[in-house]
Amino acid sequence: MSIKIGILGYGNLGRGVEAAVVKEPDMELCAIYTRRDPGSVNPATEGLVVKPASDLDSAKEDIDVLMLCGGSATDLPEMTPKYAGLYNVIDSFDTHANIPSHFAKVDEAAKKAGKIGIISCGWDPGMFSLNRLYAHSILPEGKDYTFWGKGVSQGHSDAIRRIEGVKDARQYTIPVAESVERVRSGEDPELSTREKHLRDCYVVAEEGVDRDRIVKEIKTMPNYFADYNTTVHFISEEEMKAEHSGLPHGGSVIYAGTTGKDGKRHIIEYSLKLDSNPEFTGSVLTAYARAAYRMNKDGQSGAKTVFDIAPALLSRFSGEELLKMYL
Amino acid sequence: MSIKIGILGYGNLGRGVEAAVVKEPDMELCAIYTRRDPGSVNPATEGLVVKPASDLDSAKEDIDVLMLCGGSATDLPEMTPKYAGLYNVIDSFDTHANIPSHFAKVDEAAKKAGKIGIISCGWDPGMFSLNRLYAHSILPEGKDYTFWGKGVSQGHSDAIRRIEGVKDARQYTIPVAESVERVRSGEDPELSTREKHLRDCYVVAEEGVDRDRIVKEIKTMPNYFADYNTTVHFISEEEMKAEHSGLPHGGSVIYAGTTGKDGKRHIIEYSLKLDSNPEFTGSVLTAYARAAYRMNKDGQSGAKTVFDIAPALLSRFSGEELLKMYL
Repeated sequence: MSIKIGILGYGNLGRGVEAAVVKEPDMELCAIYTRRDPGSVNPATEGLVVKPASDLDSAKEDIDVLMLCGGSATDLPEMTPKYAGLYNVIDSFDTHANIPSHFAKVDEAAKKAGKIGIISCGWDPGMFSLNRLYAHSILPEGKDYTFWGKGVSQGHSDAIRRIEGVKDARQYTIPVAESVERVRSGEDPELSTREKHLRDCYVVAEEGVDRDRIVKEIKTMPNYFADYNTTVHFISEEEMKAEHSGLPHGGSVIYAGTTGKDGKRHIIEYSLKLDSNPEFTGSVLTAYARAAYRMNKDGQSGAKTVFDIAPALLSRFSGEELLKMYL
Repeated sequence: MSIKIGILGYGNLGRGVEAAVVKEPDMELCAIYTRRDPGSVNPATEGLVVKPASDLDSAKEDIDVLMLCGGSATDLPEMTPKYAGLYNVIDSFDTHANIPSHFAKVDEAAKKAGKIGIISCGWDPGMFSLNRLYAHSILPEGKDYTFWGKGVSQGHSDAIRRIEGVKDARQYTIPVAESVERVRSGEDPELSTREKHLRDCYVVAEEGVDRDRIVKEIKTMPNYFADYNTTVHFISEEEMKAEHSGLPHGGSVIYAGTTGKDGKRHIIEYSLKLDSNPEFTGSVLTAYARAAYRMNKDGQSGAKTVFDIAPALLSRFSGEELLKMYL
């Protein structure tokens, strides 16, 4: 029997989930749900049904897990508690400060409905969080460092696009190579914001505008750029399309810990190099959809994170197969 | 209330477990159990009780988890099923081909006794296995590569020591850097045994022996060295002691996977650089001892591996704390 999957929201992440689900032999992608006009949505999968999001308002849709592919700013804080009261759900909520309250709301709704709600799934939060937890649990004396990139930050790209005279922009977050090496060597450095990441910006400017003003507005933008070494390159629309249309990302969690009386040093590093951030994130959500389905079948309910989920639940293979294949 | 820990076997791994347990605020190291004369064992921890292994033959010892620090060749196949019938236990069984049958025996004994038996814990099998499982589950289309080293292989060092005219030896396993780079770049190469690892040997020879014969015997030794590019260095006993007395190890699991119709490529890499193989392995076992204790308190029993254990069970912090600290 297949696990029946629905996707709510058909942006980059929704398409990434779709790409992953259609390749899983034990899953069936039943429908895309959208708040737009369903007729205006064109799924990559031929013949896939597109329905209005309002169809989900009762628990009548025949799906086992609903993948919530909205944004963390305004969509998920409403969506996840709402739909966790009706379906098993998974989201990629990443507003760090609000995770505890989001968890509490989803937990209440999901427990009342007897459903599972997995929140904050993806790679950070998600796989990076797991690696922080494993490392700290194994080596309680130590410190973790997270570096992001090289990769496109959508939030920073959008911030540049809001500047007057900017037609398009793409911002790459890049870890400072020397700092990564210092951490890897076990030096255990204190690193400022500026020492951890660079920001590299590609901008298409409108004709005749003052480029120096745009550069200055970018470099002095508080929170986004002012605390970083930032470089700005002006390029043509053609170059933007040809060379910067992908959404690569990645990064590393590096943990430096010690053991024993004489402080033997151990470095644990987990790193990702992703051609497509939304397709990888969608693949993580898809593996955890299998876990949500199984935990619910097993009688469990409530909010869960990657911390609460035994790794074997992610795989379509049996416990016996896993021992032979991966242990 | 502390988790009461016993250690059976006081070799390198037993000392590694001891070093980790004494630093855990929620654990109490109760005793070392040995098959040797207890009077001949000198624990690193002042005042720690040393008892004969036979004290464990009934379920009378007041311990929550027994750490089995014997070898995989002859100790653990007997020890783990035996003691899993009396206590919650953890081992680091690493004879890959025999894991399924070892699991079955431990499972039967532990279920009968209502205890938990975690097998094959450490870093490989252990953390490396986990990373293979997570990667394959997230990206079903792909391939994992495991490289070991640079690190001391005790088995290979012992094999050299058995050659006539050899007083002492230390063998380092070293990944072939070009091959690691080929995998990291996403090339997805087919690699022979020789292309994956080098073997670097440091030998103290007896005086007057034919060194060329020793080199030849090493390089042609089947299974251990014949399939590898092997280098042999003759050194003095003083050099051996000064420069090769540590037990560093490490390695990496690199996974190259693809998503989507156009095969977007993703590289996941998990790597370890360990100053002390036994202290790191002992730290992994110690974190999993906490999980064994909790799962048993929760009413669970039977054999488990790292695949079956939710990450949160390894940490001494609460679920709420974990959300804030690591997610």
